[in-house]
Amino acid sequence: MAEFLRLITPDEFVQRLARFDRLPAETISLDASLNRILAEDAVASEDLPERARSTVDGFAVRAGDTFGASDSIPALLELAGAVEMGTIPDFAVRTGQAAQIPTGGFLPPGTDAVVMVEYTNPAGGNSIEITRPVTLHANVLEKGEDVKSGDPIIPAGRVLRPQELGLLAALGITEVRTGRRPQVAVISTGDEVVPIEQKPRPGQIRDANLHSVSALVRVLGGEPAAFEIVSDDAGRLRRALEEGLSRSDVVALSGGSSVGTRDLMVDVVEGLPGAEVLVHGVAVRPGKPTLLARHDGKAIFGLPGHPVSALIVAQVFLAPFLRYLQGGALTKGPLGLSTKATLATSIHSTIGLEEFVRIRLEVEADGFVAHPVFGKSGMLSSLVKADGLVVVPMQAEGLARGAVVDVIRP
Amino acid sequence: MAEFLRLITPDEFVQRLARFDRLPAETISLDASLNRILAEDAVASEDLPERARSTVDGFAVRAGDTFGASDSIPALLELAGAVEMGTIPDFAVRTGQAAQIPTGGFLPPGTDAVVMVEYTNPAGGNSIEITRPVTLHANVLEKGEDVKSGDPIIPAGRVLRPQELGLLAALGITEVRTGRRPQVAVISTGDEVVPIEQKPRPGQIRDANLHSVSALVRVLGGEPAAFEIVSDDAGRLRRALEEGLSRSDVVALSGGSSVGTRDLMVDVVEGLPGAEVLVHGVAVRPGKPTLLARHDGKAIFGLPGHPVSALIVAQVFLAPFLRYLQGGALTKGPLGLSTKATLATSIHSTIGLEEFVRIRLEVEADGFVAHPVFGKSGMLSSLVKADGLVVVPMQAEGLARGAVVDVIRP
Repeated sequence: MAEFLRLITPDEFVQRLARFDRLPAETISLDASLNRILAEDAVASEDLPERARSTVDGFAVRAGDTFGASDSIPALLELAGAVEMGTIPDFAVRTGQAAQIPTGGFLPPGTDAVVMVEYTNPAGGNSIEITRPVTLHANVLEKGEDVKSGDPIIPAGRVLRPQELGLLAALGITEVRTGRRPQVAVISTGDEVVPIEQKPRPGQIRDANLHSVSALVRVLGGEPAAFEIVSDDAGRLRRALEEGLSRSDVVALSGGSSVGTRDLMVDVVEGLPGAEVLVHGVAVRPGKPTLLARHDGKAIFGLPGHPVSALIVAQVFLAPFLRYLQGGALTKGPLGLSTKATLATSIHSTIGLEEFVRIRLEVEADGFVAHPVFGKSGMLSSLVKADGLVVVPMQAEGLARGAVVDVIRP
Repeated sequence: MAEFLRLITPDEFVQRLARFDRLPAETISLDASLNRILAEDAVASEDLPERARSTVDGFAVRAGDTFGASDSIPALLELAGAVEMGTIPDFAVRTGQAAQIPTGGFLPPGTDAVVMVEYTNPAGGNSIEITRPVTLHANVLEKGEDVKSGDPIIPAGRVLRPQELGLLAALGITEVRTGRRPQVAVISTGDEVVPIEQKPRPGQIRDANLHSVSALVRVLGGEPAAFEIVSDDAGRLRRALEEGLSRSDVVALSGGSSVGTRDLMVDVVEGLPGAEVLVHGVAVRPGKPTLLARHDGKAIFGLPGHPVSALIVAQVFLAPFLRYLQGGALTKGPLGLSTKATLATSIHSTIGLEEFVRIRLEVEADGFVAHPVFGKSGMLSSLVKADGLVVVPMQAEGLARGAVVDVIRP
C-alpha cells in the first residue's frame, strides 16, 4: 500500500546534477549581460587609467616641493599652466612650479602628486601658496593602478551586476561571453488543476505552480515556457514530456503529490525510451518525493504538486542547477544572501530529513531575530510572510531557541 | 577659486525626494508583475483552501476513534470509501469508519483528522488498523486556514517575488495593480567622454556611466533610455536636459566632477525655466557634489562624473527613489539585504561626511568578516571586488577593527 522511496541525501542530489553538461556559451552585448553569468574570465587589454590622473580638483606638484608647508609657512609655487580635461598636458612642470588640474585630469610631466584646492591660496601674480604637504602619489591614480593590461578583472562564473558592466564598459569591452539562458518547460499535472483564469469547480484548484515556478526560473536567468495543464493520464503526460524535452533544456513537471499520481509520473518518465531516473526521492522536507531524470542530456525535474513544496524544492535544487547550466558554481540551494540570526523559538525536526523552515526576520538592537513562521507546512501564505529559510541539518532533531542560525534569503 | 557647496545631510536629501509624487499605478498581468511593486493591498476574495484538505496520503478519520491506538493495540476501522482528487466526497464517514484519502484530497463529511499511511496497516476485508492516535485537525488544512476571504494577503509597497505570484495565482488573481515603471533618461556629459564602442584618443575616457547607471535602473524596475554623450556646452546640455525631461520621469545626468564643469551643470539646470534646485551638495563620500532638481514634477539627478562616485550615489539616492516612484517605501540607500560582520581592519573617516566603504566579505566559523577593499576611492575594480558597502555615520571619525558592522549588499 505504502510506497517506499529510495531517498538520497540533498548533497547526493547535487552531485547527480553535476552529471549534466553546462549549456554552451554565447556572445551578447554588454547591456544585455546584466544578471547573466560570465562564461570566461574577462581580461583587460589596456591599463586603467591609461596614465596618471588626479582624483581631486587642485594643483599638480612635485611632492618634494610641499614638504614642511603649513598655514604659517606655506610653500610658494609658480603656475606653469592649467591641465584641461581630455587632453594630454603639453607643458612640463619644473621644481618650484605647479599646474592647476581638474578631477580626472592627467598629470603633467614632472609632477608626482596633487594638492587639493582646499589647501591652496592664490598668492598674486602667477603664484599659489600650498598650506599642507602631500606625499608622493597623493591624490593620483597611477597608470594601471585600477586595472593592468592583461589582468583578469572578472572571473568566469560571476553574475554580472551594474558595477561589473561599468568596469567592462570602461575597458571598452562591448560584448561578453555568457552561458546561454536555459529554456525551461514548466508543466503542471493533475486532474484537479485548472488554469488561474478559470473559476475552479468544487474540488478543483488553480495552477499556482506554473506562475511561481516560471517566476523563479526568470529570477535565475532562465526562460520559462508555459505548458498546458496535463491530466493524470499516461499518454498525455508522455506527450507533454516529449514536447517539453524537444523544446527545452529542462523540464519542470509538478504534480503527483499523492502516491497514485506520483507512481504515474515515475512510470511515464521511466517508460520514456532513453530516459534514466537519477533520483526517486530525496531526504528533504518539504519535497521528499522529488524526481530527477535525464533524457538525451536534458534534465527532468519532477517537483511535488503542492505549491509550497514545489517552490521550495525549486529553490533548493532547480535554482542552483539553472545557475550551473549557465556557467555558475553548482551548490545546494536555496541560493541567496545569508545572515546570522538568533532563533526566537525552538524548531522541531525529523532525524534523517533536511528541513527548510520559513523564517520571518525582525531587527533588534544586537542583530536579527529569526521567527519561524507558524502554520501548517502547506500554507502558501506562510511563504509570503517569510523573509527567508533556515536549513535544519539531516542529523538534527531540531534547533534550540537562542541558537544562532543562518537565514538564507532567496 | 574654490566653490563652497551648501551641503545637506543624506537624511535631508531623502526628505527632499519625498516632495515628488509617486507615479500612477497601472494594471498588469500576474506574470508580468515579478519584481514590480504592489500599488494596493492584495485582498483575497475566497478562502484557501475552499474546504478542509488532507496534507498527507492516508486515511480520513474521526480523531476520537484513534485515541489510545498503538502498534500493540491498533484501532480497527471499516473503510467507508476512497476520496478522489478533484472531487467532493459524496459519502459520509461514521464512527468506526475511515476513508482512504490522497494528499490534497477533501475530507469527507464526518471526518476531522487524517492518519498518515505510515501508521496504518491493511487488516483484511474492508478494514484497516490504525497504529498511532491523531489529534483533532491533524494533517488537515482547514477551510480558510491558509487565507480567509477578505484578508489582505500582500501589503501595498511589497516587491513581488515568485511566492507572491504563487499565492495570487492560487487565489485566481490574474492581474495586479503596480506602480508604473519609471522612465529614466541616462545622460553622460563631458568633452572627454566617448562611447564605449569608440577607441578613446589620448586623454579621452569611455562612457562607463551610461552602462552601469542604466543597469542599476533596470535592477530597480526602471526603464533606462540611453542618450548621446553631451559635451561641456551650455546649449547642448540644456537641449539634452529638455529632451530628457520631455521623454522621461527622471533625468540622471552624470558628469561635472571638476569645479568648472560642475558649475556649468548647475548653471544650466538653474537656468531652465521652472526648474528648482533642491540640493546643491550632500554630505556623503563619495558623491558630495550631487545635484537634485525638480522641473514640472520630474526629478533631475546630477551625479558625479566619476564612475565609482556616480554608481554609489545612484545606489544611495536614485535606487530608493525609483522604488518610491513605483509605490515602495522611501528610505536612504543603498538598498539591499544587510548582514552583520566583524570589521577586519579599522576604517578612518571624515567627521561631517557619511562615508560608503566598499567591503569584501569572508565567511569564518563564527560569522562574516568585513574586509575594507583597499585601493584609492576612484578605482572601478574595487567596486567589482566588493560584496557590499558599510556606512560610516557622519559624526564618526571611523570604525574600529573588531567592530560589528552592517554590510549592505545591493
